[in-house]
Amino acid sequence: MKLNAEVFLNKKVIISGGLGFIGSNLAIKLVDCGAVVTIVDSLIPEYGGNLWNIEPVKDKVKINISDVRDEHSIQHLIQGQDYFFNLAGQTSHLDSMQNPYTDLEINSKAQLFILEACKKYNPGIKIIFASTRQLYGKPQYLPVDEKHPLFPVDVNGINKLSGEWYHIVYNHVYDIKTAILRLTNTFGPRMRIKDARQTFLGIWIRNLIENKPITIFGDGSQIRDYNYIDDVVDAFLMVAGSDQWKGSIFNLGNDQPISLKTTAEMMIEENNGGNYIFKEFPADLKKIDIGDFYSDFGKIKQMLDWTPKVSTREGIKETLEYFIKNYNYYI
Amino acid sequence: MKLNAEVFLNKKVIISGGLGFIGSNLAIKLVDCGAVVTIVDSLIPEYGGNLWNIEPVKDKVKINISDVRDEHSIQHLIQGQDYFFNLAGQTSHLDSMQNPYTDLEINSKAQLFILEACKKYNPGIKIIFASTRQLYGKPQYLPVDEKHPLFPVDVNGINKLSGEWYHIVYNHVYDIKTAILRLTNTFGPRMRIKDARQTFLGIWIRNLIENKPITIFGDGSQIRDYNYIDDVVDAFLMVAGSDQWKGSIFNLGNDQPISLKTTAEMMIEENNGGNYIFKEFPADLKKIDIGDFYSDFGKIKQMLDWTPKVSTREGIKETLEYFIKNYNYYI
Repeated sequence: MKLNAEVFLNKKVIISGGLGFIGSNLAIKLVDCGAVVTIVDSLIPEYGGNLWNIEPVKDKVKINISDVRDEHSIQHLIQGQDYFFNLAGQTSHLDSMQNPYTDLEINSKAQLFILEACKKYNPGIKIIFASTRQLYGKPQYLPVDEKHPLFPVDVNGINKLSGEWYHIVYNHVYDIKTAILRLTNTFGPRMRIKDARQTFLGIWIRNLIENKPITIFGDGSQIRDYNYIDDVVDAFLMVAGSDQWKGSIFNLGNDQPISLKTTAEMMIEENNGGNYIFKEFPADLKKIDIGDFYSDFGKIKQMLDWTPKVSTREGIKETLEYFIKNYNYYI
Repeated sequence: MKLNAEVFLNKKVIISGGLGFIGSNLAIKLVDCGAVVTIVDSLIPEYGGNLWNIEPVKDKVKINISDVRDEHSIQHLIQGQDYFFNLAGQTSHLDSMQNPYTDLEINSKAQLFILEACKKYNPGIKIIFASTRQLYGKPQYLPVDEKHPLFPVDVNGINKLSGEWYHIVYNHVYDIKTAILRLTNTFGPRMRIKDARQTFLGIWIRNLIENKPITIFGDGSQIRDYNYIDDVVDAFLMVAGSDQWKGSIFNLGNDQPISLKTTAEMMIEENNGGNYIFKEFPADLKKIDIGDFYSDFGKIKQMLDWTPKVSTREGIKETLEYFIKNYNYYI
């Protein structure tokens, strides 16, 4: 299916986490579609928000620096909006174990703030919630479809599960229009590369650019599926432009999953240089690791004809190009 | 299996929600087993705590009135304890929709307080968490076993799910010894009968004693399984006395499920009088109703030889006798 960009012409759209990796790419695309975009972002330094991310559209969007835990800010901002792309979140698995309360406040409690605010002040709004494959935990079978049992392995997974389910329950009970995307490893321009907080891919890109070795935990045989950011943005817009507003849940994913070692080799090839080393899994990471993962995205493929269009190799090339050019804004 | 009461002789035991229905019955039994019992209860008027509940053992237990949301109180109280029966909770489905934040604070956040406190100050403690069949939502098949997908239909179900899963993750990641009981409709002496907050059975008992008609929502064909309190107390103690400390999850239940209408008729028979009327489901309750439910408790039966021993009819008889005698303390 081709994305129907006209759906968003002159529509009022709010994006939480809109200065972050996915949020900013979404904002740029929505401006391109003629939407009236409001970005909400907390700019917490350890998270993904970065003003440089929206450089191409900075004069065409409204930026509101506030935290989704700020109930009154959200209550005000959602009024009159047509769509809410709900992307703000604490995404670090390790941070969620070290500071479980912050993770709970952002990933669970603030989601209740948002839904209660919509219920009271804008019940007609349509909300797309960014969820995560982390909810499935260690796969019981592969590829993992939406029917796979939910088995979060860390506090982040549990809190994201709550946040997601509030959206489903508010849909069923109050008819607030919601849809859920469960994302796998998303990568591309504007991701956080400062450290490994969001995904190992970020720090790998930084290491490559800085001519440092990539560190692979374990033996590199672990399988992952990646989605390039443009495909993920398309998925958000296709779901938003569809009639899937019944708390519908969709996996994203890639049917060309590859091992960590292959990923590293591909990145080194596209970078025309670099090397990798193996290290034993740190104990704290090992305990919440989920082993091999790749998802079955047959549901969104069948219902909305979404498939990833950018190959992992091509995506890596684009990503490296972006970060070589914009390196100073991301370290 | 016969309960091995000696396990608890001179053991230090803390019970959150210990003035409530299940907690107080557990406290009485544990005193009988020779345990050194500390009760923690918030005595929030709308909840189940009632000092009269522990009248038989009031001089043999330590009572600490505090809320599980009081992090520092919990941090102090868990030190030196051998067992933690973690029963405090907000149990009203309707209240959770009207005040979702309170439900979250008690059923999710306070559980993190408890687990973090145990991690820091008493990592050797054994915790049994009282969970609920509500996590399964509307059954996809009957009877519902522990493998049934989790599909909470209200905010209470979501928050209880988080609370339960924190216990599982803290077990897997930090080796805190935890076990989970998913309870179905528990009834018996010391339950809340003031209103329908905890279960419809409470208000039905009150109505019968007050010679008022029992109100059945819907046509009365809805199926439920009930457990008498003594059987539930036995289950808690059997799990606590076993080696099931790997975040193990057990359903309780009853293989003689009956309809609401049959339940009402049985209660009227045992009361030697009374009547019932049908009313349409109130809209707010209908939206979070789960239809027929009865559970498969084969796992705990097989592993620990637990089965409900008191018939629903016998349990109703005992319950009516208790509340006729103690009516003034419960209204």
